[in-house]
Amino acid sequence: MGHGGGGALSAELVEHIFAPAFGSPSGVLAELGDSAVVTLGGARLAFSTDSYVVRPLFFPGGSIGDLAVNGTVNDLAMSGARAAYLSCGFILEEGVATDGVARVAQAMGDAARRAGVEVATGDTKVVESGHGDGVYINTAGIGLVPAGVDIRPQRAVPGDVVIVSGPVGAHGVAIMSVREGLEFGSAVESDSAPLGGLVEAMLAQTRDVHVLRDPTRGGLAASLNEIAAAAGVGVVVQERSVPVLPEVANACAILGLDPWYVANEGKLVAFVPREHADAVLAAMRAHPYGAEAVVIGECVADHPGMVVARTGLGGTRVVDLPMGEQLPRIC
Amino acid sequence: MGHGGGGALSAELVEHIFAPAFGSPSGVLAELGDSAVVTLGGARLAFSTDSYVVRPLFFPGGSIGDLAVNGTVNDLAMSGARAAYLSCGFILEEGVATDGVARVAQAMGDAARRAGVEVATGDTKVVESGHGDGVYINTAGIGLVPAGVDIRPQRAVPGDVVIVSGPVGAHGVAIMSVREGLEFGSAVESDSAPLGGLVEAMLAQTRDVHVLRDPTRGGLAASLNEIAAAAGVGVVVQERSVPVLPEVANACAILGLDPWYVANEGKLVAFVPREHADAVLAAMRAHPYGAEAVVIGECVADHPGMVVARTGLGGTRVVDLPMGEQLPRIC
Repeated sequence: MGHGGGGALSAELVEHIFAPAFGSPSGVLAELGDSAVVTLGGARLAFSTDSYVVRPLFFPGGSIGDLAVNGTVNDLAMSGARAAYLSCGFILEEGVATDGVARVAQAMGDAARRAGVEVATGDTKVVESGHGDGVYINTAGIGLVPAGVDIRPQRAVPGDVVIVSGPVGAHGVAIMSVREGLEFGSAVESDSAPLGGLVEAMLAQTRDVHVLRDPTRGGLAASLNEIAAAAGVGVVVQERSVPVLPEVANACAILGLDPWYVANEGKLVAFVPREHADAVLAAMRAHPYGAEAVVIGECVADHPGMVVARTGLGGTRVVDLPMGEQLPRIC
Repeated sequence: MGHGGGGALSAELVEHIFAPAFGSPSGVLAELGDSAVVTLGGARLAFSTDSYVVRPLFFPGGSIGDLAVNGTVNDLAMSGARAAYLSCGFILEEGVATDGVARVAQAMGDAARRAGVEVATGDTKVVESGHGDGVYINTAGIGLVPAGVDIRPQRAVPGDVVIVSGPVGAHGVAIMSVREGLEFGSAVESDSAPLGGLVEAMLAQTRDVHVLRDPTRGGLAASLNEIAAAAGVGVVVQERSVPVLPEVANACAILGLDPWYVANEGKLVAFVPREHADAVLAAMRAHPYGAEAVVIGECVADHPGMVVARTGLGGTRVVDLPMGEQLPRIC
């Protein structure tokens, strides 16, 4: 299961199996961003895909349908692109209730309208009972990258300010709670949301945002490690500055999870040049999906490839890349 | 299972569930072509997706890996586009052998190089044992549509000549043979092939090709019916002119299948204005993947929405839209 978890085992699969087999004449696959940026007919396009296998299909704050839209919209947004068109491939298990499929499709349609993206093309396959799990969805998306925008993990440089758009860990905890039938006082809802508008607001302040990443599988810790490794820089995070909702913190304490490693579906991490950080942060806070944005740390030249947390007591600890997702099938 | 078979039940799912839920501001989803044609940044792009759930993963003449490339490349080609970039989403079942995944990935890479398309972005999910079937693959693709090209089912008009690029039914029979352990004298191989180059050769004769369709699930019969319905025209096919390899005909006779309804993965059906038909046919025959192309019929104003076969004895019979695919999970 770890190979699908977005951590070290997933990276190994890509590095040792997929990348060598596929090759990449343009080198775009090797960039390993949330989406690829390609040029076609003179247009610079972001292009991305994700499959969605979350269980259960409906959970507090969302469903597989809106994840399938928001997840791919967000991958495109992490290249600075506003999603324009989505494709949609369903793999249905024989015997799944038609009205369940209809509810999922309705959730996708509603999410697409909220995100301002159009489902342009689709496909449906049916597999025998026992060879699927009700509904699996794949979406791919395309969107235009604005002129002058070049956002990718390799662009992080020492001096960059690291911003997170809000409290982390809610999505994974929401899935875990409903799956296990657990209650933690107040219910935790998934943060599933489309981030194209938030990114647009940030880019209106400066086109020179260096890195954007949506911390899904593997959470904030995996995203920061991937960026540190890709750019060959160090990252220092002020431990106390990373926002975590009290109910998420409680649930994590009970379940033995670390919220920094838990998946988000409506948050982003940004690496922004220091001179633009205040303006970008203000623009984020003025947007509904960035109202609780905060600076959590900075990019440094020391310990390249490594993420370090400064604790409240003045100590430091290494924030490792997780081997795999702590919770299977959360997206 | 019939809802995934590409026939009447699949059409019902799209018409009654997906299309109403998703909406389609631009109307592109309602066109129901093999791929959508959208405009982005001034570029006219074909965009398409398919999931691949074929069993077994390797079969005579191909594998799930090359189907996943060729199938999407061909969907784009049916809009006149040469595929440029593919996305690739794997859903792996826990416990699947890593070297099996590597072989599939290698087959995809080889197929991509043959088709001249680049895998630009990807995703991997893992589901528990018993909730998948080794490997499921989704690919989506984008490609440029040349200026002046407008190929879609709605453009069929009475007078168009109907051409098929070669003998039909091989893919489905190849899958069926290996799955059931049957032998039919000489082995039947899948016709899996990328058709972008063949379409380019056709468009070099005239940009005014009206309709292209790759007869996958539901076979030639489903494709002709879909075109007749979309354009509101009749189609007349000369029964004896439809090429079927002797070993495919034999296998179909034993299995009780009709080769017109069996899936192909490297064939196309073209509706071409009469004045260009000879030139287009000659260009197809000069291409390796169209060497056995023949005229099989014509488009008529009579019996709109209906496909009719003229038999060798001078009679006629209606060629129905199949309810579903005769063989489950052939792509």
